[in-house]
Amino acid sequence: MIKVGIVGASGYAGMVLTQILLEHPEVEIVWLMATENSGGKSVADLYPHLTGVADFIYLTMDEYDNVYQKVDLIFLALPHGAAMDFVPKAIAAGKKVIDLGADYRFNDNEVFKKWYGLSHADEKYIKQAIFGLPELYREKIKGANLVGNPGCYPTASILAIAPLIKNNLIDPDSIIVDAKSGISGAGRAATHKTHFCERNDGIEAYSVVNHRHMGEIEYQVSRIAGNPIHVTFVPHLVPMDRGILVTIYAKGKQMADGKQLTALFKEFYKGEKFIRIFEDKLPNTKYVAGTNYCDIAVQVNEATGQIIVLSAIDNLVKGAAGQAVQNMNIMFALPEETALKKAAIYP
Amino acid sequence: MIKVGIVGASGYAGMVLTQILLEHPEVEIVWLMATENSGGKSVADLYPHLTGVADFIYLTMDEYDNVYQKVDLIFLALPHGAAMDFVPKAIAAGKKVIDLGADYRFNDNEVFKKWYGLSHADEKYIKQAIFGLPELYREKIKGANLVGNPGCYPTASILAIAPLIKNNLIDPDSIIVDAKSGISGAGRAATHKTHFCERNDGIEAYSVVNHRHMGEIEYQVSRIAGNPIHVTFVPHLVPMDRGILVTIYAKGKQMADGKQLTALFKEFYKGEKFIRIFEDKLPNTKYVAGTNYCDIAVQVNEATGQIIVLSAIDNLVKGAAGQAVQNMNIMFALPEETALKKAAIYP
Amino acid sequence: MIKVGIVGASGYAGMVLTQILLEHPEVEIVWLMATENSGGKSVADLYPHLTGVADFIYLTMDEYDNVYQKVDLIFLALPHGAAMDFVPKAIAAGKKVIDLGADYRFNDNEVFKKWYGLSHADEKYIKQAIFGLPELYREKIKGANLVGNPGCYPTASILAIAPLIKNNLIDPDSIIVDAKSGISGAGRAATHKTHFCERNDGIEAYSVVNHRHMGEIEYQVSRIAGNPIHVTFVPHLVPMDRGILVTIYAKGKQMADGKQLTALFKEFYKGEKFIRIFEDKLPNTKYVAGTNYCDIAVQVNEATGQIIVLSAIDNLVKGAAGQAVQNMNIMFALPEETALKKAAIYP
Amino acid sequence: MIKVGIVGASGYAGMVLTQILLEHPEVEIVWLMATENSGGKSVADLYPHLTGVADFIYLTMDEYDNVYQKVDLIFLALPHGAAMDFVPKAIAAGKKVIDLGADYRFNDNEVFKKWYGLSHADEKYIKQAIFGLPELYREKIKGANLVGNPGCYPTASILAIAPLIKNNLIDPDSIIVDAKSGISGAGRAATHKTHFCERNDGIEAYSVVNHRHMGEIEYQVSRIAGNPIHVTFVPHLVPMDRGILVTIYAKGKQMADGKQLTALFKEFYKGEKFIRIFEDKLPNTKYVAGTNYCDIAVQVNEATGQIIVLSAIDNLVKGAAGQAVQNMNIMFALPEETALKKAAIYP
Repeated sequence: MIKVGIVGASGYAGMVLTQILLEHPEVEIVWLMATENSGGKSVADLYPHLTGVADFIYLTMDEYDNVYQKVDLIFLALPHGAAMDFVPKAIAAGKKVIDLGADYRFNDNEVFKKWYGLSHADEKYIKQAIFGLPELYREKIKGANLVGNPGCYPTASILAIAPLIKNNLIDPDSIIVDAKSGISGAGRAATHKTHFCERNDGIEAYSVVNHRHMGEIEYQVSRIAGNPIHVTFVPHLVPMDRGILVTIYAKGKQMADGKQLTALFKEFYKGEKFIRIFEDKLPNTKYVAGTNYCDIAVQVNEATGQIIVLSAIDNLVKGAAGQAVQNMNIMFALPEETALKKAAIYP
Repeated sequence: MIKVGIVGASGYAGMVLTQILLEHPEVEIVWLMATENSGGKSVADLYPHLTGVADFIYLTMDEYDNVYQKVDLIFLALPHGAAMDFVPKAIAAGKKVIDLGADYRFNDNEVFKKWYGLSHADEKYIKQAIFGLPELYREKIKGANLVGNPGCYPTASILAIAPLIKNNLIDPDSIIVDAKSGISGAGRAATHKTHFCERNDGIEAYSVVNHRHMGEIEYQVSRIAGNPIHVTFVPHLVPMDRGILVTIYAKGKQMADGKQLTALFKEFYKGEKFIRIFEDKLPNTKYVAGTNYCDIAVQVNEATGQIIVLSAIDNLVKGAAGQAVQNMNIMFALPEETALKKAAIYP
Repeated sequence: MIKVGIVGASGYAGMVLTQILLEHPEVEIVWLMATENSGGKSVADLYPHLTGVADFIYLTMDEYDNVYQKVDLIFLALPHGAAMDFVPKAIAAGKKVIDLGADYRFNDNEVFKKWYGLSHADEKYIKQAIFGLPELYREKIKGANLVGNPGCYPTASILAIAPLIKNNLIDPDSIIVDAKSGISGAGRAATHKTHFCERNDGIEAYSVVNHRHMGEIEYQVSRIAGNPIHVTFVPHLVPMDRGILVTIYAKGKQMADGKQLTALFKEFYKGEKFIRIFEDKLPNTKYVAGTNYCDIAVQVNEATGQIIVLSAIDNLVKGAAGQAVQNMNIMFALPEETALKKAAIYP
Repeated sequence: MIKVGIVGASGYAGMVLTQILLEHPEVEIVWLMATENSGGKSVADLYPHLTGVADFIYLTMDEYDNVYQKVDLIFLALPHGAAMDFVPKAIAAGKKVIDLGADYRFNDNEVFKKWYGLSHADEKYIKQAIFGLPELYREKIKGANLVGNPGCYPTASILAIAPLIKNNLIDPDSIIVDAKSGISGAGRAATHKTHFCERNDGIEAYSVVNHRHMGEIEYQVSRIAGNPIHVTFVPHLVPMDRGILVTIYAKGKQMADGKQLTALFKEFYKGEKFIRIFEDKLPNTKYVAGTNYCDIAVQVNEATGQIIVLSAIDNLVKGAAGQAVQNMNIMFALPEETALKKAAIYP
């Protein structure tokens, strides 16, 4: 049994992670730690749907020093800037760490600083962290001690863009990511932006030219391309609980039709358990809600030469907790689908 | 392995049933049969979320005679009046049957006729059918060949009312069931009533004095009470996919407070895996969506003497497919939770 | 032109009131005053849909003393306990006042204290305030200086109950109000309860035995009946922006069918511009959203003798701002429909 | 008084048009004609929210010949291919016509045939029809007898693109329109695509490379540019009743920042009553729901040089019925805002 602890277990991503791990046959959750004022409360207090399912009291953050040594693996699901205070100690003590936040997604403090507006406190391990996108970096994840779990928008986007870049099919400067997210992406905190009446029955864009995930997508796409790429990224808030749909536009370098590209995507992701390439239907966030799937379809507007890739994930599963468990499974040499093999609850 | 077939597998209840059975370690789905024009199509054609998960082509209804003998157990998920044509043959051949429709919920043709407006074609087996509410009739279900699976509203309602009747705590003539349902309860067929724009962002009642499930609730509650009871039942359509919340009002015979009644409900359902009695929180359909739970809370308005019971289920799981599998587990002496042990996807 | 000011103009009710008054041909808005930290901001800052429509900067609450004399009529839309500090001064100066909050809905400090947990600071005017439900108290409103505008649930409920009580048709002790509200009823403040993901795609009850509006309904229904009545009232939160649907159950004293009662309701509300009695369809909150209508239907469950009244309003219009303007129109001898004659935006 | 009749009055666009015209002080609705099986029914039968507001019985389509001469102006709100059978007769008789469908949006039968798959039956008047986008073609509309009212997606898109093209600011071959629509855009007919459970709580794209409105946008944008332009257009279905948000991407020809472009848009639409250029906030479909506004914001991603324009309308108002009334007002020399001056019902 892998002994795990979760720092930041009381947010949405931490809760989903808790729930997946409870069904994992090889995992024992040793402790859950809550942010802010949820320490001391029970899981069922915060999340009544887990009544009778999860029987834990959240620890407070100041208990970290007493408990981090009791586990083999620590997950962190914290706002950016917070994980960097917890990680070095755990790594130094030989623990494995998967950070669901932004702190270890860049191996370069300058880039981190540019997008997050603060200097990284952990210059050492930031360089060693592995970007936890298994479909692209499985081999590196196998031996990793520290995994930076990708953001939700970047997961859906990079999986959709990678086959095009790797096959040199598009003008890399032409990439546009029009992203649509459910409201759970904004987290559990009550804000004006998450008020039901502000979100219900309407749609709007936000952070049109400066969303932090644009930096993450650019950084990772550049890495795949081998040279710096700028990406246009515009996120929107859709009245739904879960799910991200990204519609990606990129100028094709040569003529290719949708069928050819679909075949190419199928080949690229051959054997991947969590990637479904759709041929004659289109991704819908409902088809992946609650699952670790990324559903992808690709079409070509032949008049304009634009390649259009549609990619849907559940932001809290493949975009956060599910992918974290997928990474854990790889790090601990377990079958990659363990605890993640489920289809959506539909409708 | 239990070999099963599903007649009416292409509707919402049939699909959810398919999905649960695919995860059941002791079940082999031998065939799926679709209503209407879905025969010949694949599961993933109708339900893209099952792409790569369910690899079946729906049979057409006229193939029934060729296949009913190939299985141990037949599930039927059909509109009322349709199952009665399929069941006798199967029972006569020694098969077990669980009917998710209304045809075998009454043991009395007269009552059936009153509420469904047609005479039952199967006078024989209607009398033998067991009402498949395990928390009340587990022993009878164990030996049953034919189970009439309860309706969705009746499941939520009867589980909430039974402890009060059995303990003689209420005036049985005073029962009022104010029910709120998600739209999947109306089925997959596209109608004006299920049009998104008619349902979104609003609420309305329907069938205020003559909903068929009122007949089912009355029939079953009368049976529990041992004498005929009339119930007031008003259903409403709520803009949500899944879930039923019933708010039940009944005049208390003697003074009892909410705490006492809560304790009584806990005692009544002691050991039940799928009943959760809430003490300091209230049921929400989101807490049970996708699960076989029935969450119940009870409170008392001390000024009026009204006992108020709140009961929430997922109409497609505990109110249909999940309960059918629970019944199957009982009929085949399997652990009752097999394939049903999951918490809600939240939020 | 009637000169008006609004205290608490930045909340949802205050904003809707602002919008209605801007379209009122006989009203000049002289000032808008915001609660909390919205003072100094523009209307369009808080409510971008009013860009180019409402050109005001909200005053802060401490400016009240400088401005209350500049108007003929003051509307207050504040949390309970706040209006009582502003009203006496205005009345004493000969101004007219309509309070959309709870402070002036009871003429009895003891009752107020019981339900609101604080003693009323304005013992004088609380006794003179007129309950602003025009369909019942039009004549008194005509001469009023101080109107306590009814709460949203009470408006929908009392209008549905009054014809039954006044005609002595029901057992007054049997009244049950099962209420369903949209989320704007919880106000504009961001709380866990108003978080999109907590409310979307689910339903739950709240304040099952102690909602403050139960007190208001009891107080007013008792007044109509001429003796004290207790009412069972259970509110629910429905995933929709606006609207209240109440489903009212009451035991009929004598046999009457739905047709007869419908005729009686039509007679009772003859000539009322904002009451629509439905005969062959049922109220839906969507039919009244954005309007001052109260749609009512009545049916009888003949087996149980329960009379069922369905009543739908927009909580922010007939349940708050619209009714306030209706009261103003009456107080100033204007046609009652002025600025209120509009049908719903549908779908 | 302008006497008008509406052919296709029973669909969503026809109903909204009816409602706006009922509030128009210079219009008398002489008759309403329904498609399909709604003839003979009353408006309130189909649309209960108009109970007591609209007192009409829908005529059937075969009564057209008896009534088209009785009015000054005929509105048609029909599926494509249907209006062409009604229009010639009316124009020949000296009536004015505004067609809300697609039949008269192109002046070229070849283009119509390409996108709609059928040859136009009215070769004569198709060439004379004026494209009813007042902000661009007001002068032509003034003298028009036959107006082809723009589609919903094209309205939002062309208004957002025109200032860029006219000022020669973008590479015209780079235009991408990522569009998000509410479900009322699919019409009132009940289909699998409009089923609540298929649309609620999820998002998906449709007609990714061949939506007919792409043809309309291309045709009109080419006309503005003076040479043929191809546009990439991908529509999505969002769980909301009303509204379209288009996010438009175009490669800037020269460096310009968001502020400069915003100023340019303000100048371009100076004096326009229904265009609101947002500076420091972003369009949201909720801000325009029920109104004739088109809200626009423009930003620049300086790293990629992409200009991003966000444009929101109500698909049934500015995207259909409201714009039709705006055109009527222009054709009849009435103030353009007549019957259209209203802000959104929010929230």
